[in-house]
Amino acid sequence: NPHVDLTDHPHRRFNPLTGDWILVSPHRAKRPWQGQSEEPAQEQKPTHDPDCYLCAGNTRVNGEKNPVYTGTFVFENDFAALRPDTPHASNTEGLLQFQTEQGCSRVICFSPDHSKTLPELTLREREAVVACWQQQTRELGQRFAWVQVFENKGAMMGCSNPHPHGQVWAQTHLPTEPATKLTRFQAYFEQHGRSLLADYAALEADKQERVVCENDDWLVVVPYWAAWPFETLLLPRFSVSKLDELTSTQATSLADIIGQITVRYDNLFSTSFPYSMGWHGAPFDGNTHPEWTLHAHFYPPLLRSASVKKFMVGYEMLAEAQRDLTPEQAAIRLREQSSTHYKQAGP
Amino acid sequence: NPHVDLTDHPHRRFNPLTGDWILVSPHRAKRPWQGQSEEPAQEQKPTHDPDCYLCAGNTRVNGEKNPVYTGTFVFENDFAALRPDTPHASNTEGLLQFQTEQGCSRVICFSPDHSKTLPELTLREREAVVACWQQQTRELGQRFAWVQVFENKGAMMGCSNPHPHGQVWAQTHLPTEPATKLTRFQAYFEQHGRSLLADYAALEADKQERVVCENDDWLVVVPYWAAWPFETLLLPRFSVSKLDELTSTQATSLADIIGQITVRYDNLFSTSFPYSMGWHGAPFDGNTHPEWTLHAHFYPPLLRSASVKKFMVGYEMLAEAQRDLTPEQAAIRLREQSSTHYKQAGP
Ligand SMILES: O=P(O)(O)O[C@H]1O[C@H](CO)[C@@H](O)[C@H](O)[C@H]1O
Ligand SMILES: O=P(O)(O)O[C@H]1O[C@H](CO)[C@@H](O)[C@H](O)[C@H]1O
Repeated sequence: NPHVDLTDHPHRRFNPLTGDWILVSPHRAKRPWQGQSEEPAQEQKPTHDPDCYLCAGNTRVNGEKNPVYTGTFVFENDFAALRPDTPHASNTEGLLQFQTEQGCSRVICFSPDHSKTLPELTLREREAVVACWQQQTRELGQRFAWVQVFENKGAMMGCSNPHPHGQVWAQTHLPTEPATKLTRFQAYFEQHGRSLLADYAALEADKQERVVCENDDWLVVVPYWAAWPFETLLLPRFSVSKLDELTSTQATSLADIIGQITVRYDNLFSTSFPYSMGWHGAPFDGNTHPEWTLHAHFYPPLLRSASVKKFMVGYEMLAEAQRDLTPEQAAIRLREQSSTHYKQAGP
Repeated sequence: NPHVDLTDHPHRRFNPLTGDWILVSPHRAKRPWQGQSEEPAQEQKPTHDPDCYLCAGNTRVNGEKNPVYTGTFVFENDFAALRPDTPHASNTEGLLQFQTEQGCSRVICFSPDHSKTLPELTLREREAVVACWQQQTRELGQRFAWVQVFENKGAMMGCSNPHPHGQVWAQTHLPTEPATKLTRFQAYFEQHGRSLLADYAALEADKQERVVCENDDWLVVVPYWAAWPFETLLLPRFSVSKLDELTSTQATSLADIIGQITVRYDNLFSTSFPYSMGWHGAPFDGNTHPEWTLHAHFYPPLLRSASVKKFMVGYEMLAEAQRDLTPEQAAIRLREQSSTHYKQAGP
């Protein structure tokens, strides 16, 4: 339609992974902002902080002492949201339905260096993080149907400690988001005989309109249906359904692409870019999952600058997600960032 | 099951309005918080602020001058997310689906008094707000299928101006959240011949376990499936599907119950309690909706104090909502608050 301009006209886009729509209102980006401003991350951190309960050799709140670790370090969350020994019970009738849940929550320290985050680590150090994610997934997948590897980065994303770390929560039942995805991936597979996200990766690699960065094995795009301003989707260019199935070459190229996207994020507003990210691999339910392509989501809150974020509030909570710039505009801005971290770049 | 204690054991609860599950981890409330703290709302505001673009008689960013209004005042959002004249276009095939959207966004000033919020207004003034919501719903429902009345209260909820105000966004298509509800309400109605939320209101009024406050016409509960720590659901005790269908008695008792819940919210942490709230009435699609009971949601972010909120981040964005106290515990804490606003209470 020659009269329609998606960079100007309000429109909705469909997320085939969830079945949700997203309202895109590109012209809203022009409105002035007088609301809350966030405190950008402190720039100077020591490499070891005696008060940090994640630093090597320090004592945690429960009295346990961290080992003097040199790579990654994993421990059970001292205030775990899930426990393995919860007794079984449920009510699946009527309006008051519940089921008890068994699981576990662990903390994954990415590095002993308190001052660094993923984009500031070396490739070798990021490889260790990928290996740790794989190892946790493999181990917990033997006991639980769902293994959720994730990272909350930055105080703005509820992270209570700036030490570089993520988490892994594993549980018996498939949580809401992956359960929805499973249904939708299966429906697509039944109809087309192919994986939805494999088709999508091929389509985006071909169009190049929403690609942020890529290497031989991986592709990062701002998805057509992105809700958060600079949301991205990390996709493999080969067939794989779980994190623990990667070859060592694919794991190395994953460490590379994670460096590429997180460096660009930091460079966008010259700040340690906050986000929540996490992995969605196929459930550990004993079945093969040809319909499920392994992928990771990055959900970063910032909109205009290091201190102005997007609020997903009233309309968004009650009606549907709404965004103020198009995914294509976001992709261009991320793509044009340097692949050298701003802190490492010369003057 | 005698071995199960829902105030201690992690469990999931089912939201019959959305089909989502919520992870409840009551013991998590004990963990210490070292993360981001929010700036509580400024306590002293003038009744008229010369720099506020919502105050009576002041000039807005587009050069228009507000009238010297004395009750409520409605105007088109100067940076509207929706416009009535967007040309029609769509692609409903494949992985890149979109549809243009027509609609409008308006701002609703609740009172000319810059210093007050809903719980601080008089009953008479709150009646005017209810009447305004009704009038907007009636008018916009003649042109659009969905009318979303909402309020973002507090800087923490993305509100960029402390002047007491809400918004109304109306649009041609049913957004994601109400579309899901419609399907679920219809399925329940087909199965039981009654409205899901009418049944639920009766059940909660009977149990009294999660009731926060009530009057002859209305009931406020922390729903069994609440995701936000102090989330509430406002339900009628009579049959009604749309806001514009209330009798004048029901509108007055609505103004009363809104006072009751918002005063309790403010009293909980002795602060102007931030939240997003909004109305879900039946769609304006030409059909009657016996399956749909009118209701309002309050989604407040605070968890422990005026400055510590719940972060719906990593696990919550990727897996499912998670809460740190039970809905029953939240209901008790709200119920035991005084019905006199802390600013009005004597020393
Ligand atoms: O329209 P406002 O008040 O400027 O903006 C606020 O409410 C909107 C509707 O919920 C959101 O999209 C914005 O992110 C929020 O800051
Ligand atoms: O476990 P943490 O890092 O203390 O807590 C953070 O991540 C959790 C999992 O996404 C959230 O439930 C918390 O709200 C957030 O503050």
